Amino acid sequence: MSAEELEQFLYSHFPDSAHRAFKVERVDDMFARVRLTFDKRHLRPGGTISGPSLMMLTDTTMYIALLAMIGPVALAVTTNLNINFLRKPEQADVIADCKLLKLGKRLAVGEVTMYSEGDPDAVAHATVTYSIPPDRSA
Amino acid sequence: MSAEELEQFLYSHFPDSAHRAFKVERVDDMFARVRLTFDKRHLRPGGTISGPSLMMLTDTTMYIALLAMIGPVALAVTTNLNINFLRKPEQADVIADCKLLKLGKRLAVGEVTMYSEGDPDAVAHATVTYSIPPDRSA
Amino acid sequence: MSAEELEQFLYSHFPDSAHRAFKVERVDDMFARVRLTFDKRHLRPGGTISGPSLMMLTDTTMYIALLAMIGPVALAVTTNLNINFLRKPEQADVIADCKLLKLGKRLAVGEVTMYSEGDPDAVAHATVTYSIPPDRSA
Amino acid sequence: MSAEELEQFLYSHFPDSAHRAFKVERVDDMFARVRLTFDKRHLRPGGTISGPSLMMLTDTTMYIALLAMIGPVALAVTTNLNINFLRKPEQADVIADCKLLKLGKRLAVGEVTMYSEGDPDAVAHATVTYSIPPDRSA
Repeated sequence: MSAEELEQFLYSHFPDSAHRAFKVERVDDMFARVRLTFDKRHLRPGGTISGPSLMMLTDTTMYIALLAMIGPVALAVTTNLNINFLRKPEQADVIADCKLLKLGKRLAVGEVTMYSEGDPDAVAHATVTYSIPPDRSA
Repeated sequence: MSAEELEQFLYSHFPDSAHRAFKVERVDDMFARVRLTFDKRHLRPGGTISGPSLMMLTDTTMYIALLAMIGPVALAVTTNLNINFLRKPEQADVIADCKLLKLGKRLAVGEVTMYSEGDPDAVAHATVTYSIPPDRSA
Repeated sequence: MSAEELEQFLYSHFPDSAHRAFKVERVDDMFARVRLTFDKRHLRPGGTISGPSLMMLTDTTMYIALLAMIGPVALAVTTNLNINFLRKPEQADVIADCKLLKLGKRLAVGEVTMYSEGDPDAVAHATVTYSIPPDRSA
Repeated sequence: MSAEELEQFLYSHFPDSAHRAFKVERVDDMFARVRLTFDKRHLRPGGTISGPSLMMLTDTTMYIALLAMIGPVALAVTTNLNINFLRKPEQADVIADCKLLKLGKRLAVGEVTMYSEGDPDAVAHATVTYSIPPDRSA
């Protein structure tokens, strides 16, 4: 699936308005990049992008990386997510890079590194596990 | 701080509409209970409460448990959050119980167990670490 | 399986001398308690029981809790372990209590709380996920 | 500190025989590589290197990466370790690469990727947080 198809799939299955902030920038072998466009609704006190916004970005980027490899499996579910918040994000878009570390029959594991656009230091880093249903039809 | 004061503090500092779904039910020594009221906006495909909603609930409940102990420290920040999604939540309110495992000068660690109302099996379990700023004035 | 049978199974499958320090104290429905007997070999500088010893205790206690429920499945493997070190352990035995949060067909998740004997404050807390092989024969 | 000095520091502070299996291969800016030499004592049933051995390797590699940056601070302690076991290691040395994601005044966070020598697919991936004491003298 292409980046455009994946973004469309995301919005057709998750019509939540919050998801509209996510742009699928690139997919590649075992890799996806998703952008969280800056929006004052994602801020927490002090003008920082909120932790929950970064967690949603983590989960979405992993989901896109997985779908890009196995196709539109709407029923794949997150089983574990571990995130470290490293520094205060800038008031800018956040770019999330997901690298799949494992793509098994039953489990997929990826790591997601997030950056404020234009800053090389990561703002957050996460690992995510998805459980893949035995029957992969969407 | 009482449950009511904590809820007011939460809303005054996090005016995000999503937070309006959280009700501080009870605070006690090293403990807080927060309710996520059921709302179709928190659903993901299949009618389940979304992972990001449970992550936001985790973070909020830990924050309330911490504030109840150390007072209104707006600048305490999450440094690590690890969550296991255990089973599909019901279409019902979710109750989160946070137990503080450690309340140090610099770090606080808590565990959060989440239940669909009326069901004794946990839907998710998380551990959270907050960093407490050296100067605790809000 | 009884606590004695589980301890025997552990030693017959993991003949590593280090495991001799583990005593299966109690198994119950979705629960196991394992004792790490104090031994100078587990110390790190400052006289504290080492982190790796507590991680091995975590993994072993979860394994015992799982085997007590599903029988001797030597091939169940840890897929994720997350541990928070909360305070310096005493120079004493460490008691680990594992509560299974989920026992599914493919994944089991447990939480493990560890205490220095005679001290009510937890020294470490962990969550562990095991993958259960499709064919459960040992 | 050089790789040789770091290895010496490790052995003088952690005289546990198990540590003798660790070789500090390379340190660089915010980076360390440590080798776990293959030894039948690290095996678990099925001839695999045990989870606890990989957890000890994770912790050691992070510790070396940190010491290489801030000097011999024996009292830096692990506060959180999260590890995903990805595939069965080969009967070979394991190479661990630690990249520091954050080096703050109070907390350091790193990620550790582990490979069986000669195999490009990671066998395990971990993130580790260390708390750095206010007074950094060893």
